[in-house]
Amino acid sequence: MSARDFLSDFHEVAKIGATPRNGVDRQAATPEDKLTRDWFRRWAEERDFQVRTDGIGNMFACWEWVPGAPYILIGSHLDSQPLAGRFDGAYGVLAGLHAASSIIDRVKVESANPTFNLAVVNWFNEEGSRFPPSVMGSSVFTGIFEGDDMRAVRDLDGVSVVEALESIGYLGTDVPPVAAGYAEIHIEQGRILEREQVDIGVVDSSWYTQKLDIEVLGEQSHTGATAMADRRDALVAASRIVLSVRNVTLRFPEEALVSSVGHLVVEPNSPIVVARRVHLVADIRSADPNIVAEARRAVLEDIAAIEQQDNVEVRVKDFDIRPIRRFPEDGISLAEAAVATVGLASRRMQTMAGHDSVAMNTRVPSIMMFVPSVDGVSHCEREFTNDDDLERGLRVLTEVTWRLIHGAIANDRVWPSVTSASETDAL
Amino acid sequence: MSARDFLSDFHEVAKIGATPRNGVDRQAATPEDKLTRDWFRRWAEERDFQVRTDGIGNMFACWEWVPGAPYILIGSHLDSQPLAGRFDGAYGVLAGLHAASSIIDRVKVESANPTFNLAVVNWFNEEGSRFPPSVMGSSVFTGIFEGDDMRAVRDLDGVSVVEALESIGYLGTDVPPVAAGYAEIHIEQGRILEREQVDIGVVDSSWYTQKLDIEVLGEQSHTGATAMADRRDALVAASRIVLSVRNVTLRFPEEALVSSVGHLVVEPNSPIVVARRVHLVADIRSADPNIVAEARRAVLEDIAAIEQQDNVEVRVKDFDIRPIRRFPEDGISLAEAAVATVGLASRRMQTMAGHDSVAMNTRVPSIMMFVPSVDGVSHCEREFTNDDDLERGLRVLTEVTWRLIHGAIANDRVWPSVTSASETDAL
Repeated sequence: MSARDFLSDFHEVAKIGATPRNGVDRQAATPEDKLTRDWFRRWAEERDFQVRTDGIGNMFACWEWVPGAPYILIGSHLDSQPLAGRFDGAYGVLAGLHAASSIIDRVKVESANPTFNLAVVNWFNEEGSRFPPSVMGSSVFTGIFEGDDMRAVRDLDGVSVVEALESIGYLGTDVPPVAAGYAEIHIEQGRILEREQVDIGVVDSSWYTQKLDIEVLGEQSHTGATAMADRRDALVAASRIVLSVRNVTLRFPEEALVSSVGHLVVEPNSPIVVARRVHLVADIRSADPNIVAEARRAVLEDIAAIEQQDNVEVRVKDFDIRPIRRFPEDGISLAEAAVATVGLASRRMQTMAGHDSVAMNTRVPSIMMFVPSVDGVSHCEREFTNDDDLERGLRVLTEVTWRLIHGAIANDRVWPSVTSASETDAL
Repeated sequence: MSARDFLSDFHEVAKIGATPRNGVDRQAATPEDKLTRDWFRRWAEERDFQVRTDGIGNMFACWEWVPGAPYILIGSHLDSQPLAGRFDGAYGVLAGLHAASSIIDRVKVESANPTFNLAVVNWFNEEGSRFPPSVMGSSVFTGIFEGDDMRAVRDLDGVSVVEALESIGYLGTDVPPVAAGYAEIHIEQGRILEREQVDIGVVDSSWYTQKLDIEVLGEQSHTGATAMADRRDALVAASRIVLSVRNVTLRFPEEALVSSVGHLVVEPNSPIVVARRVHLVADIRSADPNIVAEARRAVLEDIAAIEQQDNVEVRVKDFDIRPIRRFPEDGISLAEAAVATVGLASRRMQTMAGHDSVAMNTRVPSIMMFVPSVDGVSHCEREFTNDDDLERGLRVLTEVTWRLIHGAIANDRVWPSVTSASETDAL
């Protein structure tokens, strides 16, 4: 397998669910997601991988050198946001397949003796746009979320995860491989590597993130016949909250905090009716948990004032709180060494976005790496990484994976372990 | 038929599509709307009215004394907003049926000779929440809107008016009656009558209203991984527009202007994606067209500034412009005299809301009357008018209708007239 084969496959998969402006639209468990899954399975089976699908739709293309030994997992996700870019997730899965394929050849040629087996994974529903929360498949695999809870999650049309997976034929019953380590490569979704002209980012930690579920309760009334003073307009109050969530970032140094409202639904949403209810979700993230706490407090203060001002009731719930996770130092060093070995430059960085690697890192030593993103944009059609950068990332992932299957870093635990139940409780 | 029968029927119909807090939910051409229509037809046919349904779902319960003579139409609409009150519209139709029934009896008893025939009408889709624009059925009847255009309007699920009417069995083919005049009674949807303790409002004109269709175009990006400075957040800009539309009322004397955004849709509406597009509709109304024009100009100035501030594009279209309509003076005088005859008090007032009578008044002499609304609230479950006020209104409508069928006001034109095509063009 050559770099050209990899690029050819990558651009082939980008045609599935393609959008007019070079993006893709492949939300979890949709017909488009099914097509990428079919592609993944066919590609792997043609090359004699054993493909397993578990009860939350995670797919594993497994290669066994050492019967009964645990696996190094590499990969990412093939699902996307609506009208999204073609790199986010898909790059990591395609790079994983090609890295695995070269390593299998190299093991044969060199008659090497790996310590671990190898599996390429396509995690279910990393994006969470159709079925929240995001990072679903890897979080179920690692026991962070309960599988039964997640299978019961419904989309806005009332379709559950289990029904959607069944409908596309990917509700599996296979036992997933036991993991001894994990590696993932992904586009940066920021502009640090581009600005500094560095080839590879090695992630040392993830940002602290949390969401606020906000329900604004006003009173439905006639837009024409209700005096302004008598209105309890839920959308006016919600608009003030959107701006509060935006403006709170101004209280902190630039880029110390990001926050936004991406989801907002109005009821009854009729042009001539004052809104009775608005549901919105705020997303607050920082490298510093204290900044998130301070921002949250400031938004809640604003909300209390808005309740008075607009004569509405606002109910706020914290959810999806994700603490800072540090990646293990020996994994970071391994990645840095691998980058140097293939003749490239790296720097350490944080991830502001959630990733499957963050979930995996709670269970087994995990390595997360970034390639540059043009303009730092993602979750949109103009998300872009050039072929050279994609190919450099593949070389690095291949070298990292080669080292991992030979037991280059401490693996004092595997997952699922025999004591997994108690570990889950302790998390 | 007694006042008690009327109240009993009114409260019976209020059970159709009833909501937990005493409201109703009967959007146009839904199964609930079908049930009220079935009730209307059954009630009228049992009393020997001839029921006709036209090609836009308007229903007419016709009573003929003078073969070939035109009709006085009385009524309103049985459809509602989502989670709405049980009085808006339904009161006028039920009062119309009972007024007609007493008049038929009285004509027999007194051997009277009416000049005109009488029809009670249930107009299709006055509310417009499922299928915009509002006041649809009467506007098609009067030729203000083209029937074919309206039949092609689709709801958010892609169902057209013609499909929805067919599915409930109310896409008619009957020729509607020729109208010589129109009368409607409705709840005030304001608090003037309640505040001044007046029984009946006689409407002399409707407010000037217009809507703005606003599309905000930003750029989709990742809520976690996109620097605040790089964002082009369509929802932030839309929130500023909602507040501009609200705050513009503060520039004018209290109650001189009402304005609001009731409809707002976010794309892609995912909690971890910055919005690429928001579509919203602003509704601006005043008794003075100059105030609407000034408010519109102020909002457009704000929007131009918001485009710069948030680095988004905003497209604004004017639509649904409804000029001030004056009701004819002889109709107003007739209504005032009728109120006095039944021993009640009236005052003249304007309507801030649109009504079927406003459409009808463009074609034939029309009379619009209000009964008090508790707290002035409407389009919500706690909309309320007490039984005594409902019954007083029925007495007034009956007296007004009695006078109208005897030709009490000038009717120099009927609708549809033989020259209707050219009149439509001249409107």
